[in-house]
Amino acid sequence: MLINGVSGDLISIRDRGLLYGDGVFRTLRSAGGRALHWPLHYQKLQHDCATLGITCPDFGRLSAELASLLADHPDAVLKIIVTRGQGMRGYLPTIDAALTHIWDVSPLPVYPASYTTDGVTLGLCTLRLSHQPRLAGIKHLNRLENVLAAAECTDVNEGLLLDIDGFVIEGVRSNLFLISRGRLITPELSRCGVAGVERDRVMNYARQIDMPVEVRNVEFDELLEADEVFLTNSVFGLWPVARIDNTRWLKFNGAASLRAGLENGDIDG
Amino acid sequence: MLINGVSGDLISIRDRGLLYGDGVFRTLRSAGGRALHWPLHYQKLQHDCATLGITCPDFGRLSAELASLLADHPDAVLKIIVTRGQGMRGYLPTIDAALTHIWDVSPLPVYPASYTTDGVTLGLCTLRLSHQPRLAGIKHLNRLENVLAAAECTDVNEGLLLDIDGFVIEGVRSNLFLISRGRLITPELSRCGVAGVERDRVMNYARQIDMPVEVRNVEFDELLEADEVFLTNSVFGLWPVARIDNTRWLKFNGAASLRAGLENGDIDG
Repeated sequence: MLINGVSGDLISIRDRGLLYGDGVFRTLRSAGGRALHWPLHYQKLQHDCATLGITCPDFGRLSAELASLLADHPDAVLKIIVTRGQGMRGYLPTIDAALTHIWDVSPLPVYPASYTTDGVTLGLCTLRLSHQPRLAGIKHLNRLENVLAAAECTDVNEGLLLDIDGFVIEGVRSNLFLISRGRLITPELSRCGVAGVERDRVMNYARQIDMPVEVRNVEFDELLEADEVFLTNSVFGLWPVARIDNTRWLKFNGAASLRAGLENGDIDG
Repeated sequence: MLINGVSGDLISIRDRGLLYGDGVFRTLRSAGGRALHWPLHYQKLQHDCATLGITCPDFGRLSAELASLLADHPDAVLKIIVTRGQGMRGYLPTIDAALTHIWDVSPLPVYPASYTTDGVTLGLCTLRLSHQPRLAGIKHLNRLENVLAAAECTDVNEGLLLDIDGFVIEGVRSNLFLISRGRLITPELSRCGVAGVERDRVMNYARQIDMPVEVRNVEFDELLEADEVFLTNSVFGLWPVARIDNTRWLKFNGAASLRAGLENGDIDG
């Protein structure tokens, strides 16, 4: 682990990341010594920092730190956290606070190959995501909703989250897509949810192959009636959904084709 | 500072308090070597831990740690944080994780005496509190809404927070009360907001002196038309409100009387 570029694994109890969740993060994976889609992750990190009024450490600095980690961890999960650092007591962000940025490395999780080929099971969480347009889409450190949702969906591969209006938003740790009559549909994330890098990559690739892409409200019933449903995140990539409650899917041709395109294509850095 | 009873000021970057804001806290003050209303703070801490499924450290242990701090800090601000500690990677709370509990001590802030006698100014924040019934009322570590609100209300003594439906909820770091025709009114906190110890104490005292107490939805217009408005928190106690935007109050008899009662009365431990 690196903290502000220095090897270490401890931070101050007065860091605003702990006190208020005042920061953002991104999780990516390395494969064969390369950090997958790092420039896209950095773009998101920078965007999310800007939303909170935090100045993101610059790309060169983070890239150099990342390179030093990749040498020892060629195939791993990498997490970058940027917090507003320490400040005075109280909620008010102090302008001159020194930011904290943290790199953490974990082993790659081992998932059954069947998750990719035969799909995963989704379970509907009872927790409903609240609407906060000021924080929607960004991957900030206020993740108690995800924690509570994860705790109630332990008998499925992933929890499905709706918002307080009953619209489909995302998985607990993934973004969600529908394929219906040749169109790619994914929920709008302007009121809640986290916009992942893989979500962007899937949409970009679909546009490249002239597949219509719709980003909009999705009703739960529409999800159940979709031709295919799949999940994305930066660690597991793309998983088709085989079941939500009593609704089952058996064919995953569309998802498989998008996955192959994403893995083989050269659609980003 | 104490971390799990041991002197120190650093925690792991893998503590879920940092990663997800997966924990709760309380802020109290000491005066003359006594921690004010500590048993009430502990009750709230325990309640909030239970809401997140965290086992709160026991009263005896925390009280002993607190006593050791009071010897050196007889007049100070004390903060207790309890997080779910470290666990495996991912949102799912692991059952066997060792909790982290942290005591921090800061100097008492110095406020002008006029805040108590002549009132403070309130400014309406544009940020609206989201509705999350599963987290409402508890003082958890997901406080980005408060951070963003504090950043936009720097030219007043306290920011006023409405919820997404436009109801009055609280101050950025305080609870809020109205006095109207001899009744004490405070916003319901079942969808958002933090229920402070001073809020309970004010309501309990009002009931003791047979003042009618109403906990319910409060419209912004009703606030402006109230006979008096006041704020409470555990550090500053009770401040009357002298102004919200162009609406001014000049008399604070009701608030002053409640404050005197709270300070002199023996209504709790």
